[in-house]
Parts: sequence; C-alpha cells; structure tokens
Amino acid sequence: MAEVTMTLQKTVEKLFAEQKYATVRDILTTMNAADVAALFQLLDTDRLPVLFRLLPKELAAETFVEMEPEEQEMLIRGFSDTELSAVINELYVDDAVDLVEEMPANVVRRILAQADPDMRQQINELLQYPEDSAGSIMTTEYVSLRPEMRVEEAIARIRATGVDKETIYTCYVTEGRFLRGIVTAKALLLSDGQTKISDLMEDHVISVRTTTDQEEVALLLRKYGFLALPVVDNEERLVGIVTVDDAMDVIQEEATEDIEIMAAMTPSEKPYLRTSVWDIFLHRIPWLLLLMISATFTGIIITNFETALAAQVALVGFIPMLMDTGGNSGSQASVTVIRGLSLQEISFRDLPRVLWKEARVSVLCGVVLAAACFAKIMLVGRLLMGNADITLLVALTVCLTLCLTVLAAKCIGCVLPMLAQRAGFDPAVMANPAITTVVDALSLLAYFTVATALLGL
Amino acid sequence: MAEVTMTLQKTVEKLFAEQKYATVRDILTTMNAADVAALFQLLDTDRLPVLFRLLPKELAAETFVEMEPEEQEMLIRGFSDTELSAVINELYVDDAVDLVEEMPANVVRRILAQADPDMRQQINELLQYPEDSAGSIMTTEYVSLRPEMRVEEAIARIRATGVDKETIYTCYVTEGRFLRGIVTAKALLLSDGQTKISDLMEDHVISVRTTTDQEEVALLLRKYGFLALPVVDNEERLVGIVTVDDAMDVIQEEATEDIEIMAAMTPSEKPYLRTSVWDIFLHRIPWLLLLMISATFTGIIITNFETALAAQVALVGFIPMLMDTGGNSGSQASVTVIRGLSLQEISFRDLPRVLWKEARVSVLCGVVLAAACFAKIMLVGRLLMGNADITLLVALTVCLTLCLTVLAAKCIGCVLPMLAQRAGFDPAVMANPAITTVVDALSLLAYFTVATALLGL
Repeated sequence: MAEVTMTLQKTVEKLFAEQKYATVRDILTTMNAADVAALFQLLDTDRLPVLFRLLPKELAAETFVEMEPEEQEMLIRGFSDTELSAVINELYVDDAVDLVEEMPANVVRRILAQADPDMRQQINELLQYPEDSAGSIMTTEYVSLRPEMRVEEAIARIRATGVDKETIYTCYVTEGRFLRGIVTAKALLLSDGQTKISDLMEDHVISVRTTTDQEEVALLLRKYGFLALPVVDNEERLVGIVTVDDAMDVIQEEATEDIEIMAAMTPSEKPYLRTSVWDIFLHRIPWLLLLMISATFTGIIITNFETALAAQVALVGFIPMLMDTGGNSGSQASVTVIRGLSLQEISFRDLPRVLWKEARVSVLCGVVLAAACFAKIMLVGRLLMGNADITLLVALTVCLTLCLTVLAAKCIGCVLPMLAQRAGFDPAVMANPAITTVVDALSLLAYFTVATALLGL
Repeated sequence: MAEVTMTLQKTVEKLFAEQKYATVRDILTTMNAADVAALFQLLDTDRLPVLFRLLPKELAAETFVEMEPEEQEMLIRGFSDTELSAVINELYVDDAVDLVEEMPANVVRRILAQADPDMRQQINELLQYPEDSAGSIMTTEYVSLRPEMRVEEAIARIRATGVDKETIYTCYVTEGRFLRGIVTAKALLLSDGQTKISDLMEDHVISVRTTTDQEEVALLLRKYGFLALPVVDNEERLVGIVTVDDAMDVIQEEATEDIEIMAAMTPSEKPYLRTSVWDIFLHRIPWLLLLMISATFTGIIITNFETALAAQVALVGFIPMLMDTGGNSGSQASVTVIRGLSLQEISFRDLPRVLWKEARVSVLCGVVLAAACFAKIMLVGRLLMGNADITLLVALTVCLTLCLTVLAAKCIGCVLPMLAQRAGFDPAVMANPAITTVVDALSLLAYFTVATALLGL
C-alpha cells in the first residue's frame, strides 16, 4: 500500500510538472478518496489547490474530508466563495461539523456563510452537543419512512431521497418525529411490494440519547453488529443516527487514548509524526514531574533506613529487583482491570470478585518468584556476601518482601482503577506509573521492616 | 442496560418456575440475540436447554452465536441430531467456523456430521486458513453478480438469493470466479432498472489476500469506511468477504492484545471474569520471572558500587526516583511508537525522524525535571546531608544522571519497538517492563560513574 503511494507520487509529480493535468485527473479519479488524501499529503503543498481543483465534485468532497486540518485550512483560504460552498454543501453534515470544530473562527465564519441555510442550521444544531457525545458524532441525514407506507412506496422514497443520505441500509420509521421502528434495506428488498412497513418493521429499537458517551455508542454498535444506531432526544424524538464507520473510528481513538493515559501522557488528537516536539513535551512533562515528586517519598523511606543499609549494604542490591517486580505485578493487574472496565466487562460491583481473584493470583506468583529468587541468592549471593548465615537471612528477607510486594501490588493494582472510575475519573490514570509509585514505597517499607526484624539491624 | 437485564432475569426465572413457557417465549422473541445470550448467562445453566428450545429458529441461531463456548458446548451435548443440524445450518459460515474452532474434537465431529454437505465443505475450506488471517475471518456467503446483468436482474437475483447472505449491501461482480468490480445496493436502488452492471460497477476494487493479517484487513475497512472487503486467492479469484462487524471485533481484540502484551502478559481470549485464577497466573508468571531475573543485573551493578554507596549513603535515597523517572520516560516513548506502528502511522523507515523527535523531547523533559529536582535537593537535601558542599555535589550528580537517564530512556524506548517489529516480533513486547529493565541498569551505571567522578568516591 505505502509502496504503491510512493511510486504513484513520483508519477503524479512528473505529470504535474509537465502540466499533463488531464492525465493526472484521470489517475486521481481512479483512486479512492482516502488514497487521494494520502497522496496529497506526500506532494508539495503549493500544488494542492491546483490538484484539488482537478478532482470531480464528489471525489473532491470525499477527499477533503480525509485530509489533515492544516491542509483543509490551506485549501479553504485559497477557495473562492463558490468553490467553498460547492465543497461544503457536498459534505455529510457530521463531516461538516468535524471540519467546523477543527477550523479557526474566521474560517468557520466563511464556511457557515457559504453553507446552504438548511446545512448551516443542521451544523449549528449539531455543534450544540457536548464533545464525545452521541449528538456530536451523529448525522441528521437518514431515511425516514412512515408506518402506513407500502414497501414499494418506501423503495420509491429511498430512490428519491437516498442519494444525500449517509446510509440507506437502515431506514427509520417515524410518526410525528417519534421513532416507531426500523426497517433494513434488506428487509425491504426481500419482501413483497405491497407489505405494509408497520408489519415489516422491527419495533423493539435500541437507541441512544444525544448525551450518551460516544464510547458507549460504539460498544453498542459492535455488540449488536448494527450498521447504524438511532439517536433520540429526551422526548424520544429521532434526531439523528450514528453510523458504523464513525463507531470504528471511536473504538480506535478510545483505545489509543486509554493506552496514552496508561503510559502517563495527555492524549493527543494528531498522529505522532505530525505532532510538534513542543506539544509532545507538553503532553508528557506534567506527568513526569508529578511522578518524580511522588517518587521522592520512596527516597525518604530509604533515607530513614540509611543506618540499616550502611550496616548491611548487600540489601541495596535487591532494591531495583523488588521495585520492578512490584511495578510489573501491579501493572498487570491494573491494566487488565482498566481494559475490562472500558469494555464494560467489569463494573464496580465486581470489585470483591476481582480483588479475590487477584489475591489468589498474587499468592501463586509471589511464591514462584520468591522460590526462584531464594535459589538464586543462595547460589550466587554467598559469593557476594561471604558469610552463609547472613546470606540465608538476606535471602529470607528479600523473598518474604517479594511475596508481600506482589500481593500488595496486585491488590492495589486492581482496586485503584475501580475506585478511580467510581470517583468519576478515567481509570486509565491508575495504570503502571501511578501504581508503581505507591507500590515502590510499600515494598521498601516492607523490605526494611522485615530486614530490621530478621537481621536485627 | 445491565440493570434492565437484572430485573428481566428475575421475571424470567419466576415465569420459568411457574412453567409459563409461552410467556417466556414471547418475552425472549422481543429481545435482541446479544441480549438473550446475556440473559442466559445470568440464568441457571440447567434451564438453558429448555429456554433455548423456546426460541424461534432464527433467533435461536443468532443467540447461539452470541453465547460463551462453555454454554455452546453444553447445549450441543444436549441437542438431538435434528436440533443440532437445525442450529448449525442456520449459522453463517464464518460463525460456524468460529464455533468449530472453539469446540473439542468429539463435538466438532458431531457438528460436521450434522452440517449440510455444502456447509460442511465451506467450513472445511475456511478451516484451512491460518489463524488471524483474512481467510479465517471471512465468510463465503456474498452476493455475486455478472457484468452483463441489468440492474433489475441484479435486484431480482438479490431477492432470490439474498436471504442467506451475510450482507447484500455490497455485491461482487465476477467473471469466471475473477473479481471484476463491486456494486453497492445503494447504487442499484438509485439507478434505472435497465442500466448494465458493468456500467454501474466500481472497477477499481480494493481487495485483500486470504493470507492478509486480520488487523490489516480491519485497518483497511476503517480507512475506506467500507461495509465489506473482498478476499481473493493468489490467482485473484474471489473466495470470500470480510464484513465490518467482524472488523470491529478485530480492532477491539487487537487493541486489547497490544495492551496486555505491553503490560507483560500473554494475551487471553476470554474476558477477565471468566478466566480461571490458574490461567491468569500462567499468563503472567513467565514475564514476571523473566523481568525479575533481568532486574538482578541492575542489582549486580549496585553491588559493584557498594563501597561508594557505603561512603555516601545519601546516594541510595535517589535510586528509586531515578529508576521510576527513567521507566516512565521510556514507556511514554515506547507506547507512543508501539501504537503508531500498529495503526501503521509509523513504519521502520521513519526511525531517524522518530529518534530525532524523541531526542529533542527528552532534552526538554530532562532539563525541566533536573531543574525541579535540583531545587528540591538544595531545599530539603541540606537538612538531610548537613554539609552544604556535599549536598551541592549530590544534587549535581543526581540531576546530571537524570538528564542522561531521560535521554537514554526515550531513545531506547522508541528504537527497541521498531527494531523488534523489523525483526518480526510484536513491537508491544518492547513496552514499559522490558524498557524499564534496560533503562534501570543504564541509569544506575550513569549514576555511579557520575558520582565517583564528582564526589571522588
């Protein structure tokens, strides 16, 4: 794929330089909007306006939607009002809304000025809805049928109005503006022309509110394998639909967002290579600072045991292993729970079950790790510490601490995310970095307590 | 949602106990397959067979697909041959294949025995394809048209054959078995009945091979916003299609898999709450052991500097902070790159760009962190270490190490995943845990080298 684009790029650049515009146009028209946009990204931006004008109306609009905000803005600034309104009014409303949300105020004013009154009104309606809500990702362009229609009338209506709709495959049966049922194009095509829609329609409709979180919407679409989901207002009136292609984007974006937060970063909208060094820095530094400061508490614990350490310096050598193992055990638990929560496989009321499960897992892990660690110390350690009794005591100290650490890590790891969500935060913040800091402190505390007891420091 | 199911559960249990089966049936038939399956999961398994038999044929098959393997197996064992064949032959081929892949050998034999010859053959064909390949998730049930057909013939054909097809919304135009183009149901519905398919069809078709990785397929479906993608064999013959609902599952599964691997776990198929403690243990312990052992190298480094530490115990207190900050910086870089790679936003040839970017980011981060850290030590540290000169030297040591650590962490963090992928491994293994172990060792090495130099230990 990428390779194809590479060679295509050269060809197009060549033809363009030779001003063989007709040929370029022919090439572009054979391509899919997403690929044209990808190709444009590779080409010199000065050529964009001319290239874009080569595209046939529909492909132009489709390509425009696929482009990066920077390029969209550049094009719009170059557009005449007629060109702009041609593109805007060709867009699906939900795409137009995405565009408006990305553009600076003065560009937005031009866009709205050039949009048809009807389009403008719909855009303004959709702009009302909170970000990441069903309302903000839905489109208002759906096929609506009336219950008393016959199948053939319905098909006629689709033929008449379908071309501008984002999907014609799920039709919505409404009375007044109330949603009464849904009919799939499949059902229409496979039934007799005289059948009444009310007899054909599925009347137990699954719908969401305009305020429903977009992730919830995507999960529902996936769960039921629907192509679209109706969005209703508080009075159960149909106001729009969310289509499966948008749901796919949401699923992927939400996963990326979770992953970034779990790695202690503020999620970014843009792809990595297009994000500036400064922005990346700003997305990362606050978390690093926060975590560094909290890590100093661990330091304080150590300082309080300096004398003990001075007496038995061998103990220091095991600190990294204890901290890392604690961190890893904790993140295994937390990440599992965080993912479970965001896929709604786990809810807060499962807390006891989860905790009990993690407790048992951590006992198994702790014992195995401790055994391995004990063996290793007895084999290697003696050489380092000389004295056999000391070695044994150190080994016992380390292994006992290891068990406690793993137990603590896994329990904290599964509880914190659930509490975070309960408290209305994103559970993803309670992943490895946060967990590690807590676990480090606890494990060292345990370590030194055990050490002072066993080694009598 | 979950709440609804809870109350519904009680109702159904009650009616069932009172043997009001007709009423239960009426309730179930109003429900969506996914919800019926969810409800069944809450009910006493002894009741499943009876409940399942209450379902109308089609809903029964749909529900069966949505159930957990354990329950499917239990039901099948209870089925008469007639019941079994009724369910099996009602399934879409790709669902039947998923089922066969989940069931133990003896159950599989029964399933294949009860499947129609045609169905059996298709199942066996699909079972040939490697796991996670397009072939393994595709269905062979698609609408195929011939280029010389008229639109009305095409529609007639869909009416005649469409009911068993997984989707009728994208139709595939074939000659011999070669894929010539695609026509959407929308195009058919909106065009004149006399139009020839060859004039209507989109002949620049994007297709995948049977061997294409399922993640690649899902990314393509999402990129182009298609409802289905044709799958061709090495001779470009159409052998099946992958539908968007399967692609959504893939996107979600792959994200979960990445997240689990990044947290040092072997990915599990089952949802967390349904995975046994023992399985969870087995998915986690190998990684913990591996990481623990590699962490001991860090220990060895420390042991080699024991004398230095004994001389200046204050140094020990900063080890956790240095290790954690290194780990966090590294995982920020690695996770970003890993996600970029799996979304194909980054490829190996971007390595220099990525490295240069991370290098600059890490300088910014390093300096800010060092400054904060220096201030803190000068304020608090003096109290701990008394001597002002020592405090200054320690502060310098720590801050210099901090900068080096962040730089090393971010560079290693972005390079390792890319190298791993290049070497044919899953880049996700190069996330936080792996990175941390490497970074820990390096940071401590730097720490002690700087310390010995500055503090002349």
